[in-house]
Amino acid sequence: MTEMAALKPQHFQWSVEDRIATVRLDRPDRKNPLTFDSYAELRDTFRALPYATDVDAVIFASNGGNFCSGGDVHDIIGPLVGMEMKELLAFTRMTGDLVKAMIHCQKPIVAAVDGVCVGAGAIIAMASDLRLATPEAKTAFLFTRVGLAGCDMGACAMLPRIIGQGRAAELLYTGRSMSAEEGRDWGFWNALHGADDLEAEAQKLARRIAAGPTFAHGITKTQLNQEWNMSLDQAIEAEAQAQAICMQTRDFERAYRAFVAKEKPVFEGD
Amino acid sequence: MTEMAALKPQHFQWSVEDRIATVRLDRPDRKNPLTFDSYAELRDTFRALPYATDVDAVIFASNGGNFCSGGDVHDIIGPLVGMEMKELLAFTRMTGDLVKAMIHCQKPIVAAVDGVCVGAGAIIAMASDLRLATPEAKTAFLFTRVGLAGCDMGACAMLPRIIGQGRAAELLYTGRSMSAEEGRDWGFWNALHGADDLEAEAQKLARRIAAGPTFAHGITKTQLNQEWNMSLDQAIEAEAQAQAICMQTRDFERAYRAFVAKEKPVFEGD
Amino acid sequence: MTEMAALKPQHFQWSVEDRIATVRLDRPDRKNPLTFDSYAELRDTFRALPYATDVDAVIFASNGGNFCSGGDVHDIIGPLVGMEMKELLAFTRMTGDLVKAMIHCQKPIVAAVDGVCVGAGAIIAMASDLRLATPEAKTAFLFTRVGLAGCDMGACAMLPRIIGQGRAAELLYTGRSMSAEEGRDWGFWNALHGADDLEAEAQKLARRIAAGPTFAHGITKTQLNQEWNMSLDQAIEAEAQAQAICMQTRDFERAYRAFVAKEKPVFEGD
Repeated sequence: MTEMAALKPQHFQWSVEDRIATVRLDRPDRKNPLTFDSYAELRDTFRALPYATDVDAVIFASNGGNFCSGGDVHDIIGPLVGMEMKELLAFTRMTGDLVKAMIHCQKPIVAAVDGVCVGAGAIIAMASDLRLATPEAKTAFLFTRVGLAGCDMGACAMLPRIIGQGRAAELLYTGRSMSAEEGRDWGFWNALHGADDLEAEAQKLARRIAAGPTFAHGITKTQLNQEWNMSLDQAIEAEAQAQAICMQTRDFERAYRAFVAKEKPVFEGD
Repeated sequence: MTEMAALKPQHFQWSVEDRIATVRLDRPDRKNPLTFDSYAELRDTFRALPYATDVDAVIFASNGGNFCSGGDVHDIIGPLVGMEMKELLAFTRMTGDLVKAMIHCQKPIVAAVDGVCVGAGAIIAMASDLRLATPEAKTAFLFTRVGLAGCDMGACAMLPRIIGQGRAAELLYTGRSMSAEEGRDWGFWNALHGADDLEAEAQKLARRIAAGPTFAHGITKTQLNQEWNMSLDQAIEAEAQAQAICMQTRDFERAYRAFVAKEKPVFEGD
Repeated sequence: MTEMAALKPQHFQWSVEDRIATVRLDRPDRKNPLTFDSYAELRDTFRALPYATDVDAVIFASNGGNFCSGGDVHDIIGPLVGMEMKELLAFTRMTGDLVKAMIHCQKPIVAAVDGVCVGAGAIIAMASDLRLATPEAKTAFLFTRVGLAGCDMGACAMLPRIIGQGRAAELLYTGRSMSAEEGRDWGFWNALHGADDLEAEAQKLARRIAAGPTFAHGITKTQLNQEWNMSLDQAIEAEAQAQAICMQTRDFERAYRAFVAKEKPVFEGD
């Protein structure tokens, strides 16, 4: 177990306040592209999160009016052209490892998306648990436009489950932008907020979640991601076990005592 | 095989008319909470349904302006606090067994939801095949508010498949109410009707279904629930077999004869 | 490998222009029903498509104001009534084989649907990758109305993934028509266009796709259909491998060179 507030990443901004960690990419002049280095450092940071004792929720925020412009053309795409298969697979596995680390980090992640949200940036938004955006958010799975397939970092598995198979196919085959309104109507964004309010709303949502039973939230996250390919009967048994675990937490007892006392429960995450 | 019209349950209302069974919880003064006893008796009733010769569809109705307020705080949550793991797991498995019994009962279930529909009540609505509601329906997966995880009775498997992963995550992490309009727009409710019309509309829908080829409906229900974790190729083969079975029913021949005679088919469920 | 432009099918129309194949059923006076013969020939045609060197995308078009009225009552349903199980299963497997052939053909399929789109016709639209329709499109999974189950040719697996489990259940149990507007709002149709524009819009969409990296599109199609019952971790690893393959194509390099030269990439499908 470890504290993560003191983390000083080299390749993105990081802060922890009131048990909410905020991550934001840090090249706003170029709409925050990813580089080999920032991919690796993000992966390592999310991999450390399950053991963090001082973080209950994460906000993946925008910077300078944009979320993320995806893999940098010069820093990433150029070098990939001409690489051997062994190196290529090492790269695609590293990008996939970032998604796996986000999925397995046991803390709910709220994406707060303004402006450009494309390529791997769209994947990071998609791999978050909750997603807020501004009306200016422009989201594109534009892999096809750089000569690649739509299946990047889990997109063909995750996107159909969020917005449906037909809409996902259109976005992945054409690489076209999904407008903020489409994203809200289709269930990609949980809500839209003006740019001035976006970060405060993301904070509000993250604080609401962090004020809940955080151990149980970690179980919710595990099950939401783990039951995709279980049968319905298997999922029901898995949840019987998972919920029985949560019924032995003090937070469950705290909620009951508060109810009996007609008070608001104060959860402590154990 | 058995007739179920004469069933006299202790812990909920039950009636069978024109081959439609109607279930409704029976503590309207407390918004119809579930108890250990009503859980167990509901489970046993739905487990008997595959063998019922006099029931073709089920309506899970509201009572006194509300559907169900979930597990009773005094009758259920109090005793759970302090139970040993063996007893807790026996309880969560019993609640899961109710969902399994609904899923496997071979008769389509229409939920008719007015007012409060929360906790295990929301799960019962979700585990039904078709869902009608009034504009006053307030649905919340509020497990998180009692210190528990959102994975209860199959929620993390079923809810994303009905309304999408992003919306499901929001409801399960925050425990917030889904309004009736959200539920309709997101595909949770098949339609909204005023409280005065709700039950008549549920009857109409159940009768329409019961007037169809009920043996084939049982196969539809089986496949809708069983193909979740099949590959697409496996599902197509499973449906080839399942539909070939239905092509040997008399109802299939009845439909053909009626078509040739320019009449409306009368199905008999065999 | 083979060229398919010269194909002269007996039981449907076929043309190839600018690497786009257009299929259309050919009995407009009867709203284009399927027959045993057209099923088998469609299956064989889609099975040949992975090897076609002159086709990059497929349009499944309407004819005379209608898409397809499903299995012909006289040519198909009549003979099925009274068949032995062995023959019935051979038939349902053949219809499933058409869907499998569409799914595995490696070229994106755009359905362009006007008017009647019912039974197996609705399945063909559903098994396409992208779907355009007119406001007059009437889509019904009407198997229940001919005494059969809703599980036909993969419907219980595919439809919930496109429009959600609750809406799919309603359409499959009742056999009711889905209006064009419902289909658009629910994500079944990617867009609606007037009948005069439908085919031009389908051409536009197919050309846009065919102008992309077609080898990579084939991988996108494979993964969109193959990851349904993978775990999320498995899907991410599968995509790491699939995308690494695409990074060794010349199209990936072409896109990079074009970007550096500030030109529009010209993809060649290798």
